[in-house]
Amino acid sequence: MAKMPAIMDFGSENTSPVHPAFEHAIVAANDGYATNFEAEQWTERALRALRDFFETKELSAFTVATGTAANAIALGAMAPPYGAILCHWDAHIVTDECGAPEMYSFGARLIQLAGEHGRISPESLSSQLREARFGVVHAVQPSVLSLTNLTEAGTAYTPDEIAALTRVAHDAGLGTHLDGARFANAAAFLDASPAELSWKSGVDIVTLGTTKSGSFGAETIVAFTPKYDTALAFLRKRGGHFAPKSRFLGAQIETYVQDGLWLENARHANRAARRMSEGLAQIDGVTLMHPTEGNEVFVAMPDTMVDALAATGCKFQRDWRLHPRHHRFVTSWATADEDVDRLLDVCRSASGADLRVTPCGGAGNPDDFANP
Amino acid sequence: MAKMPAIMDFGSENTSPVHPAFEHAIVAANDGYATNFEAEQWTERALRALRDFFETKELSAFTVATGTAANAIALGAMAPPYGAILCHWDAHIVTDECGAPEMYSFGARLIQLAGEHGRISPESLSSQLREARFGVVHAVQPSVLSLTNLTEAGTAYTPDEIAALTRVAHDAGLGTHLDGARFANAAAFLDASPAELSWKSGVDIVTLGTTKSGSFGAETIVAFTPKYDTALAFLRKRGGHFAPKSRFLGAQIETYVQDGLWLENARHANRAARRMSEGLAQIDGVTLMHPTEGNEVFVAMPDTMVDALAATGCKFQRDWRLHPRHHRFVTSWATADEDVDRLLDVCRSASGADLRVTPCGGAGNPDDFANP
Amino acid sequence: MAKMPAIMDFGSENTSPVHPAFEHAIVAANDGYATNFEAEQWTERALRALRDFFETKELSAFTVATGTAANAIALGAMAPPYGAILCHWDAHIVTDECGAPEMYSFGARLIQLAGEHGRISPESLSSQLREARFGVVHAVQPSVLSLTNLTEAGTAYTPDEIAALTRVAHDAGLGTHLDGARFANAAAFLDASPAELSWKSGVDIVTLGTTKSGSFGAETIVAFTPKYDTALAFLRKRGGHFAPKSRFLGAQIETYVQDGLWLENARHANRAARRMSEGLAQIDGVTLMHPTEGNEVFVAMPDTMVDALAATGCKFQRDWRLHPRHHRFVTSWATADEDVDRLLDVCRSASGADLRVTPCGGAGNPDDFANP
Amino acid sequence: MAKMPAIMDFGSENTSPVHPAFEHAIVAANDGYATNFEAEQWTERALRALRDFFETKELSAFTVATGTAANAIALGAMAPPYGAILCHWDAHIVTDECGAPEMYSFGARLIQLAGEHGRISPESLSSQLREARFGVVHAVQPSVLSLTNLTEAGTAYTPDEIAALTRVAHDAGLGTHLDGARFANAAAFLDASPAELSWKSGVDIVTLGTTKSGSFGAETIVAFTPKYDTALAFLRKRGGHFAPKSRFLGAQIETYVQDGLWLENARHANRAARRMSEGLAQIDGVTLMHPTEGNEVFVAMPDTMVDALAATGCKFQRDWRLHPRHHRFVTSWATADEDVDRLLDVCRSASGADLRVTPCGGAGNPDDFANP
Repeated sequence: MAKMPAIMDFGSENTSPVHPAFEHAIVAANDGYATNFEAEQWTERALRALRDFFETKELSAFTVATGTAANAIALGAMAPPYGAILCHWDAHIVTDECGAPEMYSFGARLIQLAGEHGRISPESLSSQLREARFGVVHAVQPSVLSLTNLTEAGTAYTPDEIAALTRVAHDAGLGTHLDGARFANAAAFLDASPAELSWKSGVDIVTLGTTKSGSFGAETIVAFTPKYDTALAFLRKRGGHFAPKSRFLGAQIETYVQDGLWLENARHANRAARRMSEGLAQIDGVTLMHPTEGNEVFVAMPDTMVDALAATGCKFQRDWRLHPRHHRFVTSWATADEDVDRLLDVCRSASGADLRVTPCGGAGNPDDFANP
Repeated sequence: MAKMPAIMDFGSENTSPVHPAFEHAIVAANDGYATNFEAEQWTERALRALRDFFETKELSAFTVATGTAANAIALGAMAPPYGAILCHWDAHIVTDECGAPEMYSFGARLIQLAGEHGRISPESLSSQLREARFGVVHAVQPSVLSLTNLTEAGTAYTPDEIAALTRVAHDAGLGTHLDGARFANAAAFLDASPAELSWKSGVDIVTLGTTKSGSFGAETIVAFTPKYDTALAFLRKRGGHFAPKSRFLGAQIETYVQDGLWLENARHANRAARRMSEGLAQIDGVTLMHPTEGNEVFVAMPDTMVDALAATGCKFQRDWRLHPRHHRFVTSWATADEDVDRLLDVCRSASGADLRVTPCGGAGNPDDFANP
Repeated sequence: MAKMPAIMDFGSENTSPVHPAFEHAIVAANDGYATNFEAEQWTERALRALRDFFETKELSAFTVATGTAANAIALGAMAPPYGAILCHWDAHIVTDECGAPEMYSFGARLIQLAGEHGRISPESLSSQLREARFGVVHAVQPSVLSLTNLTEAGTAYTPDEIAALTRVAHDAGLGTHLDGARFANAAAFLDASPAELSWKSGVDIVTLGTTKSGSFGAETIVAFTPKYDTALAFLRKRGGHFAPKSRFLGAQIETYVQDGLWLENARHANRAARRMSEGLAQIDGVTLMHPTEGNEVFVAMPDTMVDALAATGCKFQRDWRLHPRHHRFVTSWATADEDVDRLLDVCRSASGADLRVTPCGGAGNPDDFANP
Repeated sequence: MAKMPAIMDFGSENTSPVHPAFEHAIVAANDGYATNFEAEQWTERALRALRDFFETKELSAFTVATGTAANAIALGAMAPPYGAILCHWDAHIVTDECGAPEMYSFGARLIQLAGEHGRISPESLSSQLREARFGVVHAVQPSVLSLTNLTEAGTAYTPDEIAALTRVAHDAGLGTHLDGARFANAAAFLDASPAELSWKSGVDIVTLGTTKSGSFGAETIVAFTPKYDTALAFLRKRGGHFAPKSRFLGAQIETYVQDGLWLENARHANRAARRMSEGLAQIDGVTLMHPTEGNEVFVAMPDTMVDALAATGCKFQRDWRLHPRHHRFVTSWATADEDVDRLLDVCRSASGADLRVTPCGGAGNPDDFANP
């Protein structure tokens, strides 16, 4: 891997280089003949490592190559076709998976809940469940609560917050899913253990990502109850996600969860984001849209500043999804302090100029989605 | 058919007796051997009658037995699996069809638009289309605009309002669908022709109901463009909705649309609703939630009044769907003046008592859906 | 209903007139206000009548308007998407439902079994189950055995034959379905009770038809185990098959199963078919392809005879489905002796002429399907 | 990569080590920041290389991680839900993909055609199309012809054979798909160019595998017509197969198709298979079930010989799929002469003993599938 220049690529963790540990992992896993699919040693090793990581033996794991697949297979195993999946209005499963959850559940509906800063508000969940017509055939039936941690707003649910939501969901008979594409970043921010952020807080299935944390591409559906295993196994195969050479997925996952690579990478990325966030907060005209609790920074800033950044070749998500003038900067295991500092320099230089900016309003309301 | 007593059944048009004309129609269609499926004369006669009714030869028609089927097949023919169907947040296809549109479209998403009194606001439609990421594979693709006339709030879109919405939809490449379960009631209220309320206003497919207007159960998917014909025909069969004895559906539809039965029934029902609405408006403590433009009356009223009505055996939709303290009364071809007057008497008697009522707020915001 | 002339319509039972009892039934059910969907008395009455008919209280019933819907909903409730439905290679669910079972099961596969004269051979079933890779995610999983009685060849399974097949299926963990579009004809032929032909022989779900027996169109999914009830109820609604005016379906079903109308109609139709079959068997050049055990007669006959029949306006299924020179004649409750006798006269007159006929070979092999 | 001992692993190409060139490729592609999804240089480079490989500019390419995904997405883009996909009765899409084609096509049916040695017989195709009831809504509609080359029997279709089949398919309005999991092995055997084996022979979409040829896992859907592009792009994403770090798929594909690695690996594997096949043919009691035209050897052999092989740790597919006493041995780029020779030694030693073997009959008939 070539040495990284001090460049400003904050578009997505996926654009950053793959961490050398994953290169080593797949080369090590290429050690002669193996068994195809999951009968080889690497899947077993990954499973053992995941059980240590989550501190439980009650865990089954299904590896896949993308986060969309992990989420969709998990949700498809949990929701009947006439079911509904309750999630935050800004969740990745709503905005960026082209209806994969609908495909894998054969048409279950995503119901979008309100909540500030990416977190589902307990009131929104309760009210939705109160209004649901359970047992009435005319209405789709709430079947799954899907959380995301880090949320899509870069904030972290605490174990207590998760537990409060999953308790309500379980009481109403729903299963609980947690999209953990940035699970490590949440854990690092909260100083909470993977167990505390998952089954100890009432999560039935976590989809645990390594791709955004520096791997080539390896995600795992981790189920803390065996009741979905059959559906998960068949849906994965039927969806074309059962890799004949699973060993290279297993090897990456083992590498990630053991020996603390997951935590080291997450802490690094979080520190970089905090450095950026703290720096930006001191610049005139820049407004943080959400607290920076992981590796994502969401800001409103003057157009002149945006243009200045773009002119230097800085990569970031301009007008993040459906939020005009709301920009996202993401850090990764590979982000260097110089990268962040250079960004701050550019912003500082552009400040003081014309600071017209149209604020995008509160970020926790479905109306933003419909009428930003 | 037995003579109707002066009872107060305002729960749904479907509970009222079938109009005698439909009894005659199916007995008449039972005239010896016929051909099965649609090769007999009655389907052809219905088609001719529909072309007269809609004043166009450019019309194909597919009969089915329920409104849910009609809507779902139409939407399934228009939207790809990765598509999205834009509709009012309170539309029947969202609230009462158990995900049938999702099933027939293989997982397309319903996107709920804002708008007061059941009508989609042009701003909400435009803003949704502006935000849609057309051509971006990560996002579901808006494919159909689905209107309802009468709306779910009992109001009527004028031809101009329809045309304004369909123009925006067509400009963005969407097809247009109109759920016409109460199409006749809208036409009767507006004194507009079926043509003006459909293809002349840019509607590609109308699902025209007769069931709520007094038939045994016969709905028609009416397409004003041939481009969906193949999909409609195969989806109908595949969904189990191609009746071997279609002649009894065809006979009902012909009976309905020719000789003005549709208009007569609709006018009768609308008059009864207006009598009820005007009477209720003068009673202390009763608030009309929506203008009465068809055969549905939506009111807030004191609990004591609601209880008094229930005690007399009056049937109505209490706490209409997701709207607490928001009650729906529906009239039909069979509603007698005495039925309405008796209702008004009961309400008047119950008035003057304790008038505590929690108003349910504006009725045109998605928030009502999430947090009524 | 007009008096029937002595015409020769043997194309399908569905072309024959509706029996007057069903006219009376729906007029009787139109007796003032009712409750919509299934809360009215007629559904309850149909349920009671079905429990008497099948001699069991362990029975739930779901009415729909077409046989395709009944089969597809039943199979969809029983088979997971990765499941397989084992059926005869010539079953209606394979040949004439446009993939409705696939739609309602979200893609389960129909596996076609061999067997002579429309009956699945026990060897074919056993061998298929032996080869099935149960628990192996690469293979679809056999989940349902679907029988048809009368079979598609017009033959009847005895209770013992059904029991032998369902025992094998249950032993392998499959559910069992019986397509009973012509259930009454089988019962009449065998002099067996509905109970003997269903749950007493190990059938979990029967789809019981009345449409071919003379109704306007009413079919019932009858489940002898509650375990599929939730799926059946939601799939029916989601498929658009939950009729708001179910009372007219209920009334037809009650009429059919009580007071012996079902048996009377079936016996009449069977007698007519036997009269036809025995007459044809004595005509030179006519070969019966299957034993006549119900109301269907399958024959090979010289082209000159076929042409002679066609010339008289006789209706029948020429080149039945995929079987060239294999013709089907169906009788119904309305078939008169004169109708049959006139057919026999025409055939006798055409006999003695050129008798070239290409026999269509044995009728119990999948090869016929692929290479008739 | 560790040095290979002379072991006898003939279970699947997927168990053999990954070729060093692919290790180099992904390390080279990990060269600092890139763009996520397909906006980076490696996808573009792969596309250019594929256009050279197939000698055409009229080519779009969609990379995915598994062969099942490639086939299912391709077939889903080509077949409507009410469609049918015609394929050999022993095709991988039938036997080993758990219904993925049904899932991605939303329930289209696989219709299994007859043909010896894995090749669809032109007669079987023609007869199926003759019997198809095109335009009749009761029947599923043939929409795609799916070939496999190498076939599942390890034989190769010549360009002329492909052209003859695709011509019939196109004439009937079908699209044409070729499962090219072992495309290179067919090309190497026939000394035919990729172009000759694909678009020049009338193939609309090839799913081109590199996984079995030694990569980590990279497959490409190659379309020679733009008409499926939209459906392919959205289905891929919706199925969860659009990899955020596509660069590592692109790099493998470029490596494979340029500079002849594909041909070198295929020739090596084919030579090893031929060495095995020729050796086995000379051993008493061994019968070749299919001609060895690629890298797969199918044999019947005495149980004693099978047991002897198993005892030495030799890996192979015993009782290949549904074919009892029909065993499959696969070679790969990594197979050494010593591996093959050791296998032959074991077989020779076991020969002369009890040679009872139940032959599994002709291998080209659907009956084998149902009743082997």
